[in-house]
Amino acid sequence: MKKIVVLGSSGSIGIQALDVISKLKKDMAVVGLSVHSNIPLLKSQIKQFKPKAVSVNSPDEAKNLKEWLASNKLKTTVFYGKEGLEQLVSMKEADTVLAAIVGAACLAPLIKAIESGKTIALANKEVLIMAGYLITSLAKKHSVSILPVDSEHSAIFQCCIGENKSKIKKIILTASGGPFHKPNIDFSKITLKDALAHPTWKMGKKITIDSATLMNKGLEAIEACVLFDVDIDKIEIVIHPQSIIHSMVEYVDGSIIAQMSKPDMRIPIQYALTYPDRIVSNLSGFDLAKFAKLEFYKPQFNKFPCLKLALKAARSGGTFPAVMNAANETAVKAFLDEKISFVSIAKIISKTMSAHKNTAGKDVETIINADDWARKYADNLIRINGRTK
Amino acid sequence: MKKIVVLGSSGSIGIQALDVISKLKKDMAVVGLSVHSNIPLLKSQIKQFKPKAVSVNSPDEAKNLKEWLASNKLKTTVFYGKEGLEQLVSMKEADTVLAAIVGAACLAPLIKAIESGKTIALANKEVLIMAGYLITSLAKKHSVSILPVDSEHSAIFQCCIGENKSKIKKIILTASGGPFHKPNIDFSKITLKDALAHPTWKMGKKITIDSATLMNKGLEAIEACVLFDVDIDKIEIVIHPQSIIHSMVEYVDGSIIAQMSKPDMRIPIQYALTYPDRIVSNLSGFDLAKFAKLEFYKPQFNKFPCLKLALKAARSGGTFPAVMNAANETAVKAFLDEKISFVSIAKIISKTMSAHKNTAGKDVETIINADDWARKYADNLIRINGRTK
Repeated sequence: MKKIVVLGSSGSIGIQALDVISKLKKDMAVVGLSVHSNIPLLKSQIKQFKPKAVSVNSPDEAKNLKEWLASNKLKTTVFYGKEGLEQLVSMKEADTVLAAIVGAACLAPLIKAIESGKTIALANKEVLIMAGYLITSLAKKHSVSILPVDSEHSAIFQCCIGENKSKIKKIILTASGGPFHKPNIDFSKITLKDALAHPTWKMGKKITIDSATLMNKGLEAIEACVLFDVDIDKIEIVIHPQSIIHSMVEYVDGSIIAQMSKPDMRIPIQYALTYPDRIVSNLSGFDLAKFAKLEFYKPQFNKFPCLKLALKAARSGGTFPAVMNAANETAVKAFLDEKISFVSIAKIISKTMSAHKNTAGKDVETIINADDWARKYADNLIRINGRTK
Repeated sequence: MKKIVVLGSSGSIGIQALDVISKLKKDMAVVGLSVHSNIPLLKSQIKQFKPKAVSVNSPDEAKNLKEWLASNKLKTTVFYGKEGLEQLVSMKEADTVLAAIVGAACLAPLIKAIESGKTIALANKEVLIMAGYLITSLAKKHSVSILPVDSEHSAIFQCCIGENKSKIKKIILTASGGPFHKPNIDFSKITLKDALAHPTWKMGKKITIDSATLMNKGLEAIEACVLFDVDIDKIEIVIHPQSIIHSMVEYVDGSIIAQMSKPDMRIPIQYALTYPDRIVSNLSGFDLAKFAKLEFYKPQFNKFPCLKLALKAARSGGTFPAVMNAANETAVKAFLDEKISFVSIAKIISKTMSAHKNTAGKDVETIINADDWARKYADNLIRINGRTK
């Protein structure tokens, strides 16, 4: 019986993870939940899963929730704030932490979870971009496994099962291409609604925009370097519009292993939660109708400057990936708030990166400082320029 | 350093295996070779690889070869006949036997190789059809690994590395479809030349015809059942004209692992010879030009009766697979000798199977008898009918 804490249980991954867990009751239980602000959903999750503890954002929310729990005769402990997340992930009742908080906010609880010796199912990519090698070396020190939840990294992980990683020749990272990988798109006219209409995956808003700019694939390339200890030049990105092959690993002997499934995040989520086992699910497998034609082609780097910027940050190393990521988070938030245009996202990131002086990024503090600096710099660019064209 | 005996070194697989071995000199050496009749090629192979011993078909050929060896100051030992093959595979100098003799003739030396504790790289499928469970249980008894060389079974094997086989939901066996999987083919007018023109793979004649009738895929389905211990109903056959995905394994959790490469037999041959290692080769891997579009569709069972017959034999079990295989070998030989038409191949097999009384096939003798009976019965059908239409 695995005892799981779900960080970010009201997000897209959190909700799907709870769906998976609810169907595997014999094998796993929820002992902790956290949300940022969706208290109504948290309440219904508490009723369903009866976790040992939960964490919310503010002391006020915690107080209100405690009253509600008391009136419902529920015995869940309530934590709050940054400290609350750390208390939640270090509970002795937990053995696995699904880290599904979006963005840099996931870093502190993740580090605490690793230090507490919990198995990590990692659905947050930004922390690996910011502080990847710090996290993997910390995990090594505490003999903690980091199991990727992202479909591409779950695919790569599965393609490496039983294999010797030193025999990897390259990783072929597939990208759906997002909604704008067709000819004759006028990028200057892309609206928020256009950008949120992903052709194959149902995901959170931040990652949907990152998929539309292809930044998501750049972030994933960096993440793959960290998780599988390969150089960025060993990552080949290919567009695969059907999102059936979630990635491939080519070995030195010319043989390629690929992982496939219908685009349903519950498959990689379940794999991360049941690993090293595989458990029977009602999730569908091979289906000729969906697998009839699988296509692959080169990404158009000139149309997707965010992808180029991410790869540049990967090659530069140090604090550059953290700065690129922070500028991207800031710019995407501004785009979601309809403060800037789609094409401005890349411009904000590029300008922020140009203004940054790279350092080695040897500790979390340096990285957090670089991240903070980049957010402020990008925010300032957004404020100054208003709706940057 | 692996010391390898290549049985059938003048055949298509044998020649490609020697090409692989010649490029991996640091890791492997040839200690034995056998040919059925191509003595000139054997001589050049002896010069190149200087094996400890070779085996030829007849005492006369052995005598001539010995004289040639003496005049060339070569010290290779010469064996001959069935006994020669058994002497060759049981040499103490050998640790791996690549069994690449086509058809039932491979059975006796294969059994001897297993009894001698050699690792088997198996490129012969007929023996697994005839006596699969006898062979796998013998291999288990002698703690011998059987590593498949066939591209599909090598793919399935690679898709199972590090996985728990009890978690296989199904095996998706891919078939190129051969030259006749297009609409509007008049099967009654297919010539030998048409049938030998395989669209993707360069192979021996017997297997090229089996690919054209789709019998090859039926044989492979049975082989997969034996090698991976799954029921025939867990095998799904799909046509994949590009021959890039060599097969897939779907697990109980809905995740599918696939193995891919350009259609080049040297990749699975090398894998079987280097397993559990992978060694750098100059064989090409992922290539967008070749992988641009991968298609999958259902086989047309009504147009390919040989495939139906093979699956029927698989479900019947006992001596039926051996009889089906023997009738097929006999009919394909008659087609290659231009004694019967393409459509007659299935008719000969069907009639032979209908005339056979199934028995359990518990020992090699029973199977050999059923095989003998089927060959004679099929031969007789061919003789009586002349060019059967």
